[in-house]
Amino acid sequence: MEIRVVATVIVKPEFLSEVSDALHEVIEPSRQEVGCLQYELHRDIDHPETFVFYERWASKEALLKHNDTKHFVNFAQHLEGKLVALDIKRLKSVA
Amino acid sequence: MEIRVVATVIVKPEFLSEVSDALHEVIEPSRQEVGCLQYELHRDIDHPETFVFYERWASKEALLKHNDTKHFVNFAQHLEGKLVALDIKRLKSVA
Repeated sequence: MEIRVVATVIVKPEFLSEVSDALHEVIEPSRQEVGCLQYELHRDIDHPETFVFYERWASKEALLKHNDTKHFVNFAQHLEGKLVALDIKRLKSVA
Repeated sequence: MEIRVVATVIVKPEFLSEVSDALHEVIEPSRQEVGCLQYELHRDIDHPETFVFYERWASKEALLKHNDTKHFVNFAQHLEGKLVALDIKRLKSVA
């Protein structure tokens, strides 16, 4: 079953530039992964410290593998202490 | 400029069936609107009382018109008092 992710990242102001770079850098290697159907980064128009990933994965297994990749693990470590909040939702499309 | 929306709707348990119906009913007329590029409903796999719309609109004007349509205004009124939380983010795609 295809699985979607909406991941909301709210960045501490003093780390905005650094985290923005890290968010952009994780995109391309993620898109190269088997089972990655979409991996798109957005920025909140009204709150520029808020970023939102919208991701589509071919299966739950593909998403689990993504979470274990070197680029994702490095990325997650790089964010530590630099965020106000992080929310990750695993979704299924219903209509 | 294309504009995206991520709208998160958390429903009070006693209204889950009723609100789920209303969420589904607003989709088709919204998709028929000029400037609606995508209007997709998701459900949280881990928290089934949480729904997420992912929307793509051709312009800010198209989104503003959507908010004034009869089907959207009726929909919003129908949800009053039945939600735990509602969060609407206006986004731009950055990568």
